[in-house]
Amino acid sequence: MKNLNLIEPKTLSGFMELEPSRQRLFNAVLDTIRHSFEAYSFLPIDTPVIEYSSVLNAKAGEETQKQIYRFLKGDTDMSLRFDLTVPLAKYVAKNYHNLTFPFRRYQIGKVYRGERPQKGRFREFYQADIDIVGDGALSIFCDAEIPSIIAGVFKSLGFNDFTIMLSNRKILQGFLESLKLQEKTTAIGTVLDKLKKIGIEKVKEELVKLDIKKSAIDKITKFISIAGTTNEQISILNSQFSALDSQLFTDGVNELQQVIDGIRAFGISDKNFQIDLSIIRGLDYYTGTVFETFIMGHESVGSVCSGGRYGNLAGLYIDKQLPGVGISIGVTRLFDKLESELAKNLKPTPSSDVLVVSADNNITSLIPIAMKLKELGLSPLLFLEDTKLKKKFQYAEKLNIPFMVIIGENERETNTITLKNLNSGKQLEQIALKEVHKIIIDFYN
Amino acid sequence: MKNLNLIEPKTLSGFMELEPSRQRLFNAVLDTIRHSFEAYSFLPIDTPVIEYSSVLNAKAGEETQKQIYRFLKGDTDMSLRFDLTVPLAKYVAKNYHNLTFPFRRYQIGKVYRGERPQKGRFREFYQADIDIVGDGALSIFCDAEIPSIIAGVFKSLGFNDFTIMLSNRKILQGFLESLKLQEKTTAIGTVLDKLKKIGIEKVKEELVKLDIKKSAIDKITKFISIAGTTNEQISILNSQFSALDSQLFTDGVNELQQVIDGIRAFGISDKNFQIDLSIIRGLDYYTGTVFETFIMGHESVGSVCSGGRYGNLAGLYIDKQLPGVGISIGVTRLFDKLESELAKNLKPTPSSDVLVVSADNNITSLIPIAMKLKELGLSPLLFLEDTKLKKKFQYAEKLNIPFMVIIGENERETNTITLKNLNSGKQLEQIALKEVHKIIIDFYN
Repeated sequence: MKNLNLIEPKTLSGFMELEPSRQRLFNAVLDTIRHSFEAYSFLPIDTPVIEYSSVLNAKAGEETQKQIYRFLKGDTDMSLRFDLTVPLAKYVAKNYHNLTFPFRRYQIGKVYRGERPQKGRFREFYQADIDIVGDGALSIFCDAEIPSIIAGVFKSLGFNDFTIMLSNRKILQGFLESLKLQEKTTAIGTVLDKLKKIGIEKVKEELVKLDIKKSAIDKITKFISIAGTTNEQISILNSQFSALDSQLFTDGVNELQQVIDGIRAFGISDKNFQIDLSIIRGLDYYTGTVFETFIMGHESVGSVCSGGRYGNLAGLYIDKQLPGVGISIGVTRLFDKLESELAKNLKPTPSSDVLVVSADNNITSLIPIAMKLKELGLSPLLFLEDTKLKKKFQYAEKLNIPFMVIIGENERETNTITLKNLNSGKQLEQIALKEVHKIIIDFYN
Repeated sequence: MKNLNLIEPKTLSGFMELEPSRQRLFNAVLDTIRHSFEAYSFLPIDTPVIEYSSVLNAKAGEETQKQIYRFLKGDTDMSLRFDLTVPLAKYVAKNYHNLTFPFRRYQIGKVYRGERPQKGRFREFYQADIDIVGDGALSIFCDAEIPSIIAGVFKSLGFNDFTIMLSNRKILQGFLESLKLQEKTTAIGTVLDKLKKIGIEKVKEELVKLDIKKSAIDKITKFISIAGTTNEQISILNSQFSALDSQLFTDGVNELQQVIDGIRAFGISDKNFQIDLSIIRGLDYYTGTVFETFIMGHESVGSVCSGGRYGNLAGLYIDKQLPGVGISIGVTRLFDKLESELAKNLKPTPSSDVLVVSADNNITSLIPIAMKLKELGLSPLLFLEDTKLKKKFQYAEKLNIPFMVIIGENERETNTITLKNLNSGKQLEQIALKEVHKIIIDFYN
């Protein structure tokens, strides 16, 4: 009789929910990122998914406000976090007296943004963030260390061909100042930030709308397009010091020069980074070095890791100057866009090495054999159901388990096992249990 | 000038938020549990924290309903998950045609219950669950495998002295049937479930309130107190078959016997498990074997891992019989109660092996040395700030970094390093960089 009162088991749209084999790959990505962060001595924190709305929304813009999942529980106004930076700011302010600065923390976790559902946009997604937060001051060398961490992460993920684009916001700011456009910095920045998406002609059109003279627009677009090797770019910038006469510009170029010297000292090849003066990032937030990261051959994915230097992390919560530098990886989006590449690069091992089955449904006799295989360092899976041998083969195949140990009357009598390689179809009989480990290990190598 | 408009950086009560060193221990606990689950070939899933309220609350009782974080976003009625079982049921129903049964999944994640705040109760907490879900049927040997997984987890966590208490709900149900009390099974079960908390006398008082005759109460309390070795308990139960004349009772005892035979086959010593007929668990949900786990010397913590066999996982969502068996560990509570034990057992390594510092704030010269130490397999942390040497020592001490590499003019000239063991205070000078690795590795061994 059909049950007519069933509830449809549906998942909210914009929420990624994977089948187990894909989830294993996703977890391998998370683990790889985490291990890279830990190799650079970042410490973990894990802040709540829910915070007081007053804490979380203190500085959120109108667009973000609309996206926030906010609700009352009893009398308490609470919200789900929409990034890991605001919770970090809260955490550092709250624990200021117990933390050791420079505070190097990583956090990997889900964040929530109720955006309009569209392909490739997620309402629940993982971010993986690192930040180095100083107390009062923070060395410019920290900015230089960041690209070596980005390189470490993406090399571990199997992407050797990546470019870290960097700039220093003071440079563009100083340049606009010299054009007497300092009051339009934010508006111009917002336009330039769209360069890679909309192209230079549209950027020019939008700058016209900001009531900027054609001559200034030409200067700006020429400026952000300064090309050449890194050293050539730096020379061009240096040569403009006296003409521009902007301390901000000079400071920015000098900082950028130091960061680049540092990046090279950290062993990052010039082919993996590049100055790009059109990089802007979060307009109110970053104050110096800014980064974006592109995977070559997959530039259309956009930046896979972005961040930069900020002057003060937690000014909303504490009366201390806490400058920092950090980056964020949108892991769910990265996975969504580059899953097949990641699968090739990370090649997750099977969840089990060997399925242990009975040829005659004598299940009890299987258990000590599986236990022994486990002791030998293998990852055996016991098939405990009473069913046909054919179904057991299908089970191993569906789960991509490479080997099967088969035990029947013969094997029990001779105290041996039958081992089948499910990839080659080759079957070995009368094998001593202790030989299985070597055969399977040889298969992997 | 004091900023008077600061927002208090507070965290919601009932939400665990740890300092980094404690977070590292917590993560080690999560990792240990995960690796145990994976060693038993469970596959990961990661369902959303938010679900449609209609899906999540379909069967939630009144008490649970009150605790759920439920809200509207636009027109959509959504809720935060309060356990990992309901999302599993949804997931299995939704993906029924793509899953391979028996489906062995693990999920570790945060769940939300807006309970009244009180010491040791959390509103956001991690659960770590495994379940084996069959399609139509599931071997009783799966019930027997569960204790070997529990044993694997708790041994990995450093707890060798634990007892898995088990029963089969059919036994008590059959016994009550024989007393003609089958209609009061749920009410009686609710009372017996509190035995360990309130003691036998209070249990008797509460049974009186259920309008049960004294003679029956005596029989029930005597029954649930059946003691002795496991074999003696089973004999006592077997000897009551004819007197009780309940098929349910007989089935329950036979299943329990099979499960115990299986547990022994899985190599679990009799000292690590025990029949306890007072174990009841989720009253509407479990239908056969039930488990609770206690750590000896920490019995007051209560059960640290509980679960059992259920007849049908996803009947609300799909017209299929999907029996299963599973367990759940409340990780946040476990950590809260046993943190100091876990710290002793798991001994997390330092986040860095060695702090690399400059004696004269020549930072650039440090970078290649740190890179070299990294290549040698160490986890160095570069101290990049321009400050006094004393502050650098304090930094290493606060972060429990065991070694410090110090580079000054002498070291640069002689191309050597100075290595200080911060535990012993012993300082080695004129060391070749490549010797550092051996010295540090020797320290750990």
